[in-house]
Amino acid sequence: MYDLLKGLRVVEGSAFVAAPTCGLYLAQFGAEVIRFDNIGGGPDFRRWPLADNGSSLYWEGLNKAKKSVALDLSHPEGREVAQRLATAPGDEGGLFVTNFPVDGFLAYDRLAKLRADLICLRVMGWADGSQGMDYTINAALGLPQMTGPADDARPVNHVLAAWDLLTGAWGAFALVSALMARQRDGKGREIRAPLSDIAAASMANMGFMAETLFAGRQRPRMGNDVYGAFGRDFTTRDGEKLMILAITPKQWGKAVEALGLTAEVAALEGELGVSFAIDEGNRFTHRARLYPLFERAFAGRTAAELTPAFDAGGVTWGAYQPLEAALTDPRLYKDNPLFQEVRHPSGLTYAAPGAMGTIPQDQRRPAAPASRLGQHTDEVLSEVLGMDAAEIARLHDAGVVAG
Amino acid sequence: MYDLLKGLRVVEGSAFVAAPTCGLYLAQFGAEVIRFDNIGGGPDFRRWPLADNGSSLYWEGLNKAKKSVALDLSHPEGREVAQRLATAPGDEGGLFVTNFPVDGFLAYDRLAKLRADLICLRVMGWADGSQGMDYTINAALGLPQMTGPADDARPVNHVLAAWDLLTGAWGAFALVSALMARQRDGKGREIRAPLSDIAAASMANMGFMAETLFAGRQRPRMGNDVYGAFGRDFTTRDGEKLMILAITPKQWGKAVEALGLTAEVAALEGELGVSFAIDEGNRFTHRARLYPLFERAFAGRTAAELTPAFDAGGVTWGAYQPLEAALTDPRLYKDNPLFQEVRHPSGLTYAAPGAMGTIPQDQRRPAAPASRLGQHTDEVLSEVLGMDAAEIARLHDAGVVAG
Repeated sequence: MYDLLKGLRVVEGSAFVAAPTCGLYLAQFGAEVIRFDNIGGGPDFRRWPLADNGSSLYWEGLNKAKKSVALDLSHPEGREVAQRLATAPGDEGGLFVTNFPVDGFLAYDRLAKLRADLICLRVMGWADGSQGMDYTINAALGLPQMTGPADDARPVNHVLAAWDLLTGAWGAFALVSALMARQRDGKGREIRAPLSDIAAASMANMGFMAETLFAGRQRPRMGNDVYGAFGRDFTTRDGEKLMILAITPKQWGKAVEALGLTAEVAALEGELGVSFAIDEGNRFTHRARLYPLFERAFAGRTAAELTPAFDAGGVTWGAYQPLEAALTDPRLYKDNPLFQEVRHPSGLTYAAPGAMGTIPQDQRRPAAPASRLGQHTDEVLSEVLGMDAAEIARLHDAGVVAG
Repeated sequence: MYDLLKGLRVVEGSAFVAAPTCGLYLAQFGAEVIRFDNIGGGPDFRRWPLADNGSSLYWEGLNKAKKSVALDLSHPEGREVAQRLATAPGDEGGLFVTNFPVDGFLAYDRLAKLRADLICLRVMGWADGSQGMDYTINAALGLPQMTGPADDARPVNHVLAAWDLLTGAWGAFALVSALMARQRDGKGREIRAPLSDIAAASMANMGFMAETLFAGRQRPRMGNDVYGAFGRDFTTRDGEKLMILAITPKQWGKAVEALGLTAEVAALEGELGVSFAIDEGNRFTHRARLYPLFERAFAGRTAAELTPAFDAGGVTWGAYQPLEAALTDPRLYKDNPLFQEVRHPSGLTYAAPGAMGTIPQDQRRPAAPASRLGQHTDEVLSEVLGMDAAEIARLHDAGVVAG
């Protein structure tokens, strides 16, 4: 938690990963982020993984450091409260993050009638408004056919919701950028961020699309080989798998030296008339000749022998470890200053992260947990919308709000 | 291309994906982004995929809309020029994006002596400064063991550099947030964004870490099954693979109805005494009972029959298509307004994307290509550093700059 965005007020009407991470990053930089949900929870409130008591570890991870308001969004008055929240006044407000449908009761045109300078970050599936999620967008872009062992033709979906995460972070960037523009020109804007466009643009940014355009077909599946350079998993004498990677000349030189392959690699360079050091593409082109050298070198040593040699030699490498090992890895979790013990709405206490980056000049404030659903309903109705106690009580009695 | 950040000047000293995408997003929102590279190109200048003429499609994709300066970074004077660029004056300058080592000639403390209010976004591998890349961080977090077919124990690296992309976008958000803070408090800051922390925090944000902490071991590998809900690829009568997904009750109802499975699913619910509609976890728990129903329904229909039925029924689904098919998909590439035909530094003309999101209120400016390496050296030395023609000529003659 840092205070870079202290003073900003952001309202979030969201579910799942992309829009909630956008709000999360804003909250972890000190913005007041108010998430509203349906009474009883939105479509992600029971999403797995679950704690033993049924609470969602997913929901409480994605909504840390936010305030929570519970509304009946099927009720016209509940919808009106949501609209008023999204468009509440204040120079540092009027910032709304959502993945609600582009043409529904939270459509930009409707909200702009209540606040003309509203900035809205709208996460979408497909750009035309049709349903799309991380998995189906991946399938449309060839990634599951490029992923997985070369000797298996079945499509492999990767388990990381990468486009969701990217959309959330890019969305936070876009929202703050639009705020800077509004401070200059006073204009409201909707920024539409469909997963389909974020994914298509990213594939193009990394050259996948131009490559396929000129080759006529996409990159073939090649298991764990790092495309265009040298990298793969190799098996040690004691059966451990280690990933080694050499993109730069320096990385290559260190890997070859640490494995004692200098003479053998030089001989192969002589035979082929190429330099592996200068051009990483040569390592990729001739990888079928290089792999046996590396396989033998790994097979002759244990992981316990290779670890200090790789670290001392500055090799770019990594062991494959399950996540339970990562939890005891001081670099990742156990002693990582990003993480602090926090009591979560599930009632469980476990270490959770604050802001993902570190600012040496500022004091890091401890990670803050998610709120109980509806925990801030009354506070927000009073402070943000200026309702009096009688009005708030009426909304409770009518079942329009809860908490 | 939009003008949200018009007027900002960002200097980028970078390579690979994370830091360059940070600069790319800033440039596509109208900031002036000046990337400096070694004369002849940095370590990513020849990165695959390559065009037939040897130009990197990767490099020209990641550096669109930026200016380019070429310096000899092994030369003390070249390093000094880089330092002066990163810290050049101006209220809307003093913004530096880099993945150069944290303690080298571009260390924050050194640069802060030249400009005390410098904002620096520093992409790192591991937080302790040691070498780490997307692949090795993934391996340390268990993802390759969770990815791939359940009947194959080999680790599967996914091909998408997801942490790189996330770090770039989050970094752009952090940089602009730090600028907003500087406008308030006048302070400079370094924001360190190690892939290891971005990845560990993200796994925790989505609940993976808490799940593993309480279960004692990570989520098992389960092929293409969507965790905690209903989703998988199924094969049609004509051998096509389609991904179908149902997280919300609405998505589930539509999938069941479109496949004509209402009665069979109701019978299974009766037998098991559960509701699949209300609780997506039940669909996951009992997926071994549900899959045969869906397998039979898909096997009885062709993809051509299912496509209109799914679309008309509002089902969340997607075909697995290779990237060459995505290039003819009007939603992704062919008619996607993000993409415009551009002549790139490779000499090739092909459609490339501008800003990843869309702002209906603003006019989208066409995508801009990358620059030729060193194309703006003289212009930048003159306009940003105020050098006269004689000084610039001297630097050229000494081999300190090129372009």
